Formats: sequence, C-alpha cells, structure tokens
Amino acid sequence: MYNLLKGKRGIIFGALDSNSIAWKVAERAHEEGATFVLTNAPIAMRMGAINKLAEQTNSTVIPADATSMEDLQNLVDKSVEILGGKIDFVLHSIGMSMNVRKGKHYTDSNYDFTHKGFDISALSFHRVMNVLYNSNAMNDWGSIVALSYMAAQRVFPDYNDMADNKAYLESVARSFGYFFGQQNKVRVNTISQSPTPTTAGNGVKGFDGFIAYAEKMSPLGNATALECADYTISLFSDLTKKVTLQNLFHDGGFSNMGVSNPIMENFMSNFENERKEE
Amino acid sequence: MYNLLKGKRGIIFGALDSNSIAWKVAERAHEEGATFVLTNAPIAMRMGAINKLAEQTNSTVIPADATSMEDLQNLVDKSVEILGGKIDFVLHSIGMSMNVRKGKHYTDSNYDFTHKGFDISALSFHRVMNVLYNSNAMNDWGSIVALSYMAAQRVFPDYNDMADNKAYLESVARSFGYFFGQQNKVRVNTISQSPTPTTAGNGVKGFDGFIAYAEKMSPLGNATALECADYTISLFSDLTKKVTLQNLFHDGGFSNMGVSNPIMENFMSNFENERKEE
Amino acid sequence: MYNLLKGKRGIIFGALDSNSIAWKVAERAHEEGATFVLTNAPIAMRMGAINKLAEQTNSTVIPADATSMEDLQNLVDKSVEILGGKIDFVLHSIGMSMNVRKGKHYTDSNYDFTHKGFDISALSFHRVMNVLYNSNAMNDWGSIVALSYMAAQRVFPDYNDMADNKAYLESVARSFGYFFGQQNKVRVNTISQSPTPTTAGNGVKGFDGFIAYAEKMSPLGNATALECADYTISLFSDLTKKVTLQNLFHDGGFSNMGVSNPIMENFMSNFENERKEE
Amino acid sequence: MYNLLKGKRGIIFGALDSNSIAWKVAERAHEEGATFVLTNAPIAMRMGAINKLAEQTNSTVIPADATSMEDLQNLVDKSVEILGGKIDFVLHSIGMSMNVRKGKHYTDSNYDFTHKGFDISALSFHRVMNVLYNSNAMNDWGSIVALSYMAAQRVFPDYNDMADNKAYLESVARSFGYFFGQQNKVRVNTISQSPTPTTAGNGVKGFDGFIAYAEKMSPLGNATALECADYTISLFSDLTKKVTLQNLFHDGGFSNMGVSNPIMENFMSNFENERKEE
Repeated sequence: MYNLLKGKRGIIFGALDSNSIAWKVAERAHEEGATFVLTNAPIAMRMGAINKLAEQTNSTVIPADATSMEDLQNLVDKSVEILGGKIDFVLHSIGMSMNVRKGKHYTDSNYDFTHKGFDISALSFHRVMNVLYNSNAMNDWGSIVALSYMAAQRVFPDYNDMADNKAYLESVARSFGYFFGQQNKVRVNTISQSPTPTTAGNGVKGFDGFIAYAEKMSPLGNATALECADYTISLFSDLTKKVTLQNLFHDGGFSNMGVSNPIMENFMSNFENERKEE
Repeated sequence: MYNLLKGKRGIIFGALDSNSIAWKVAERAHEEGATFVLTNAPIAMRMGAINKLAEQTNSTVIPADATSMEDLQNLVDKSVEILGGKIDFVLHSIGMSMNVRKGKHYTDSNYDFTHKGFDISALSFHRVMNVLYNSNAMNDWGSIVALSYMAAQRVFPDYNDMADNKAYLESVARSFGYFFGQQNKVRVNTISQSPTPTTAGNGVKGFDGFIAYAEKMSPLGNATALECADYTISLFSDLTKKVTLQNLFHDGGFSNMGVSNPIMENFMSNFENERKEE
Repeated sequence: MYNLLKGKRGIIFGALDSNSIAWKVAERAHEEGATFVLTNAPIAMRMGAINKLAEQTNSTVIPADATSMEDLQNLVDKSVEILGGKIDFVLHSIGMSMNVRKGKHYTDSNYDFTHKGFDISALSFHRVMNVLYNSNAMNDWGSIVALSYMAAQRVFPDYNDMADNKAYLESVARSFGYFFGQQNKVRVNTISQSPTPTTAGNGVKGFDGFIAYAEKMSPLGNATALECADYTISLFSDLTKKVTLQNLFHDGGFSNMGVSNPIMENFMSNFENERKEE
Repeated sequence: MYNLLKGKRGIIFGALDSNSIAWKVAERAHEEGATFVLTNAPIAMRMGAINKLAEQTNSTVIPADATSMEDLQNLVDKSVEILGGKIDFVLHSIGMSMNVRKGKHYTDSNYDFTHKGFDISALSFHRVMNVLYNSNAMNDWGSIVALSYMAAQRVFPDYNDMADNKAYLESVARSFGYFFGQQNKVRVNTISQSPTPTTAGNGVKGFDGFIAYAEKMSPLGNATALECADYTISLFSDLTKKVTLQNLFHDGGFSNMGVSNPIMENFMSNFENERKEE
C-alpha cells in the first residue's frame, strides 16, 4: 500500500495458518514491496497452508527447527542466497509451552517440559540472532521483532510458564540488541500484543472469556492480528530506525489501565447482586 | 514519500525554527500528503521563520497561547474550518521552565515560576485535548502525540522542574487518552526523545556534553530531530491504530541501558588515572 | 514493639482522624520510640481529634498550610526546637482535588481547581523538602516518605486529576531525592498504597465497589491503613538506609496483576449470562 | 537487635563465605531471634566456612543441589522437622553462569551452558517454591525473597546470560507469588541489589571498575552486603506483610538515575581533553 518495505529482504518465523500474526505480517510485507523467506518448525508446518502463503507472496519456504543451530545456519545461509543479499528484517513468532499442552499446572511443573518450552519459546530468539550476527547476515539498520505478551510483566494465572518465557525473551531482545546495535546498527524490539485468537492461542483454557475481558478493559479494544501486522511493518520500515531495546505494547491501551468503566460496571452488577443476597 | 498521511488533517504546535522537532514533523507530514495548521505562542513565534515553513508546506499559521482556553478554542474552530473537516493528528511540542530560564536551582524553586512552567509545559496538553474533545473536533482513529523526555522516569540533575512537568504530561496522556479512546477511538501517546540540539534545548547548562554522553550510552546513537519526525509520522499513520496510553522511547536504546562499553571505557580511563595518582 | 525508631525525631503531615494512614503512622511511630510533631492544614484540622492523638503520643501539634512557605518554615524551625535536634523522618500524606470535590469531570476540568489541587497534593511535597533542605534540618540518613497511588502509572477513571498529581509527586521524590541524597544522605521514597477507606478517600465516587474490586484482584487482599503504617515504619528505620528514589507498591500484589482468578470468575459469570441472553 | 524475627523459622540458601549476602542475612536473622537451616550446593560448599557460620548462629547445615527435586524435598522435610514447625522465611541467593565462567561471550553462547546456568540461577527458584508449596511447608504470612540484579531490566554488557536469568527469576517471583499468596498468604519478592563485592561477583570482568561507577552514579552510594541483609530482614518481618510480587531496588538510588553530577563531571573531563586534542 505504501511501499514501506520496497527492496527489503526478510525472514518470517511462525506463519502456521491464516489466523497467525506471522501470516498477516507476510501478507502485509508482500504488499509493502518486501521479499522474504517463510520458515517454521518441520513438525509445526501445515504444508498445504504455508505453501499457499508462499505462492501468494512469491516467497520460499525453508523449514527450520528454531532450537537447532544447524537448521538455523542453513536457513540464514539459504535465505541470503535466495533473496540475493543480506537480511533487513526478521519476525520471531514462536512459542509453545509443553506444560500448558500437557495440562500441568504452574505450581506443579514438569521441568523437562519447562526446559523444552523455554528452548522453543525464549532461547530460540537468542539462537536466531546468534546465527544472524555471527554470519554477518543483517544489513545495517535492519530490524528484528519478536512477539511477546504482557504476562512478562504482570500475572495472568492461566498463562503458565509462557509468562516466564516471555520475560526471558524480552530480556534477550535487550541483551542481544545492545551488541547488534553496536556492531551493525540493527535494532531489536518486542511487540507485546493483545490476546489474539490465533490457532496457537486457542489452546489456553478460558481464552475466549479472557479475550472478552481484555476487550472491555482496553479503551480502543483488543488489537487484531492484522493490526499487529501493520504495526510490525512500521517497525521494519525506515520510520523507526532509532527505536531499539524496547518492549512495545500494542494492545488498545490495556497495559496502562488500572480498571476501565465497563469492567467496573460489570463487576458492580455482580457485587450488588451478592450484597442483596446477603 | 509513502503517502502515509494522504487526506489527513492536523495541528502542529511548537515549530520555532528549523532545528525544532515540530518543524521537521511539519515538513515530513507535508511530504506524506497531510494538510495542517501550524501554531505557536504569540510571544514565541519568530514570524519570519514560521511563515516560511507555512509557505513551504502550504499551511496556515494560527497563533495561540496554549494556556489560554480562548486561544485554543479559536485555534481548533478555525483549523476545522480551514482544513475542511475534523482533525486526524495533533503534535504537542511545548515546554518551558521559568526556573531554568531564570537560573533557579531545583532545590530553590520560585513557585510562581514552577506554576507557570507547569501550565505551559504540562497542563497545556490537557487544555488542548479538552478543547478538541469537547468540540468533538477529532476524527475517529485520530492520533495525538506529545513530546516528552526520560527525565520523567529517571534523574537528570540539570533538567530541573521540566522532569516533573514531563511526568505530569505523560500522566495526562494516559488519563485523557482513556476518555478519548472510549469516546472517539482517538489514541494518545508521548514520545520520549533523545536529547536533541534544538534551539530550546540549547538553553540547558552543559547540554552539548550531555548529548555526547547520551550518544556514547546509546547503542544506535542519539535520535535526531528528523528521525523523531519520521517516528511521529508512523504514530500518525494508520499502521499504529491500537497503540495508545504509551510513552514510547525514541532514543537509540538509551532508556534500557545500564551502562555501555564506551561509557565504561571512558570511566575506566579516568578511574585508572586516579588510582595511579593515589 | 521493636524500638525501631528509638531516639528518632519526625514530622507527620496529614493525620485527620483515626481512619487516616498518618494517624496510624503516628501511633506506630510512638510505639517504636520516636518523638514527633503532628501537622495539618489549619482548615483541615479537626482540633478535637488531632489533640487527642497528640496527647496519646506525647506530641505537639503545629498547624501549617503546606502551600505556604512561611508556615512550613515555622513548622520546621519549631519542630527542631521542640524535638531537640534535627529531623530523622517525615511523612507527607496530603492530597486534595478541587475538581473531584466540586464534581468536575476529568475531561472538563476547571484549571484554577487543577492548579490549586496540584499545589496542595504535589507541589507541597517539593515545598516541604525545600524548607528542610535549605534549613539543613534533616539528620544524615534521614528518611522522607510520601503516600501515593497507582493511578500515577495506570488509569483509574474516577481518580480524576489526582492521578496526574500523584505522577508529579513521585517525580518530585526522585528529583529532590537525588539532591537530598547527595548532600545529606537523606532517602526519599513514595509508598503506593492500596485503596484505603480513609475519610478522605471516601469522597471518591463508587469507592467501596472499587475497594471490593481491588480486594479480589490482589493475591493478599488490600493493605490496611495499619499495615501501611507498619511498612512506613520499616522505611523510617535503619533497615532501609539504601532504598531511595523508589515508588514502593504496598498493595497485596495488585500492581503486578494482569487479572486474578476471582476477578475472571466474576467476569465470566456475567459473560456467560450475557451469552445466554443473546 | 530488634527481635524482628523472634520465633520465626527459615531456610537460607547461598551462604558461601563471609562476603556473601546470604551469610550476612544469616547473621542478622540470628540477631533478630530467628532459627534457620543453612543450605548450599554440595559442590559449592566450603565446609569449614559454612560450619563456622552454623555454629555461630546455632543452625544446621543441610546440603542441597537446588536443581534436584529430591534434594530440595529432603531439605524442606528435614528443615520443618529440625526447626519444629513450618517455615516463615526463605532466602534464595543462588546464581551461576557457565557461559561467564567458561569465558563465552554473550553473542557466542554455548547453549548447554545456557540451560545449565538457567536451571541453577532461575529455575531453581521455581523448584524451591514448588516443594514448599506442595509440601504445605510455609506458614501463613510467610516471606520468600530472592536476590536479583538490575540487569534484568537494563543492559550491562558484561553480565552476559545472568541478565536473562534474572529476568526469568523475577518473573517466577510474580507467577508463583500469585498462587502462594492466594493459597497461603505467602509473599514473594526479589531484591535488586547494588553490585556487591562478593566472592561470586568478583568473577565478572572489570567488576571493581563497575562498582566504582555504580558508587558515583548512586546518590547514596552502593548498598553493602550488610545493608542488604538489613533490608532482607525488614522483608521477612511482620512490617511488610502486604508487599508481594515486587522487585525492590536496594541500590542507593542507581535504578532511577539517568546520570549523576559526579558521573557527568568524570565524563566531561575526558570529553574536554578529547576536544583539545582534536
């Protein structure tokens, strides 16, 4: 629409299906003139789906397990080759909690699951940047974005160990972002997105109720996947060159709310009912 | 360059001269297809300068004292009339500390000066939004941005009462932003910008040394006025519709640094010299 | 109980009646072995009440309008004289919004009221420290505490301009705390307390409902006035000598909650009722 | 000195030698009337040293590898037995980065080392609370504290992956603290302490220079190990019952400084020398 990414080359992790934020980012990046490689874990890939996206956006799919340094090295090397030059933007949209998937409560973690979820959801971001940095594969003033969630700062009881993984992820953005900035003028940020009804998010217990809660708490309502893609494009563009080491809330204002009037009204209607019953 | 603001109408406060961030925002907004009104306090206006900018950007100048409700009402009414419709974006770039100007140390404030600086630097932002809100002068999904500085969160000893004013300003962005979001889907944010060698900033004692310090602390170096204008454009554009109530650091990473290697090296060279002398 | 303040001298602002946090602080400081002066604005003083507290705690009452430099100078001079030495601790518990009192909505402020509430609620803290600092009236390693509220960081729609005043107050704690630390090793902090059913707080619309909401959101429930007094004592004691420039949440955990299970259950019961009705 | 912990029972992790913060906490807890168990990893224990501390404080030593659930279960079971009742306070002071120890730069991590350091430094805190929670071994209104560092929020380039580990640790405090608060009224907090010349800290490159830097940045100077012990005692005492889910800076004010006058003076002396040479 605006040619904001004209001539830019990217790698997009995590486009699972058309509900994914990464999927919308790919569509929007294509509209804005970028070329890119799509990647996903071999076991997470829904081949039909991602191939359709690749076709639609003239992009190549390179499977990579984000916890394997070999896969990541192969991904980066091939991406530079296929795209014809160094990388300008990267989207990290990867997360999975084995404890959530297996129904383990936060106070009763299986620590093998914790390590595994940590590796996939948090450490993978370090691994990706490690390969890019040591392969000298990023262009100066490139932009790296990972998707996060406010559970990194505040308690959402059902978010389980993903909360702690997101805190680690955001710390990696700062820690690695410092070195990537110093060496290559590359900026590294995380977007802390509203709860979003993606296929991945839908696994969380009571997720639709929570989405309704967040909608009522946020003065602008929840941010959609497409809106998140728009925001991500702005962070990949040349308009945001000096924004780095930041965690950026994209949530209709939820993060800075104490309580909204609609939430208080909802609460009071119950509160007064309970009082009457007493 | 991208037509990001095509068809959008705005009001830009605070373009003093070509070093001003607001001046750069006006130039960039014009390039992006916006139409707007320029405004400044009558006593702050350098008529030659702002008229040149108006001519260059096909805009009108309407003087307004941002502490006068009448001036602001007149500004908003005329702007809607001249621009031919409701407002899509507003930049608030206003700040002045009488205590700084008159050389009063922070621990020895003149409280009449404090009230006056508070009214100009902080409360003016509330006044501007009050008039826009009660005149129903903003389009849905409009965007309001005020410029702030990290002294709102952390101590910079020479920043004097402007630190406290910026803390108030950022709070007003949240408080008013809630109501403006609920009623008109308008977003309100502040940009916390690197120290910038504007004509206004140059009044602060030791400012060039501090700029050098910030440059060495920030992994991407300080953000310039033009880069701040680019970032502001992204916040006025439709790419950031769900970002609200935020204070957004645009500072090459300074805000999330504990210490950088260049700063430590500088410190250690003195530290070791001092040790030798002991 | 523990002799934590044995031999320490203080000034306590804001003990209105036995519901006041400042009242509880006075009682607890007395139990911990401190001597102190009680003060309040002449017009806010309920003479019967505060005289009873003075008698109970062997303290003197010195009226002072916290927006009057003369009153504050007199207060500090007399306190040092009466207590027989420099001051070790100060509690600032002062706040009043004229806009709230007169029923002005946040989006329709009367700016004379705003200035007045700002002077009483926020700038008064600067004034108090100004007099203490320039009179050299604080002992080394003294402790100054002001009471704040989380509306300084996050939106609580009914809190009106007190939100912005608290943001300014917390900024003053940092700004002045720097100079007071450098010169006299005095620490300056704010406590961000749970909503508390004091006589002052009770004026806010829907306050009891909000207290119930905060109770359900906080894993430990709301903090009471007496618990706040205990916490304040810890900050006046020698156990916390290196804590400064901080805003310390004393709120049963509210500040770091995204949502609690009890709040979600309450929300869901309505949410599911609404769904059924559709 | 004050009997603040009279009758309270605790477990203290991480007293390595007399420079350790945990060592000072043990000494101070003993003075305040507590009884407790000392524990450390078998391989980290300097038997002579810790036995001396045990003797001095009438406490028992129970070795435990904090990454082993069996060791931790044994520790908790035996502690309750030896101390004659449930636990009132726990100090977690455990941290080790294999990457730092083996000289791996942050941008070139060995991920086996990363996992190992993560398990010891961050996940161990979850493991400890898991055992306490599921064994129902904490008294109501108990207090759990872990030691952290500001690298969790801001970049300190030499802190390596300990920065990310501390971010995870602080998140665990919030996440587990929610459930521990709901179920047992137990509070969980982290103290973010000044850089401290402990035996463990001394391994970090250029650490003494950094301590000097932090000293000049902090208005009250760095907090010592003994001062940290004092502060920890206040958090174990009944004065702080409603403080939970917090990360509490104990650092002489460093965390809220942008820049101090002494640091700017140091910087400017170099800056002006460099200018002259140009």
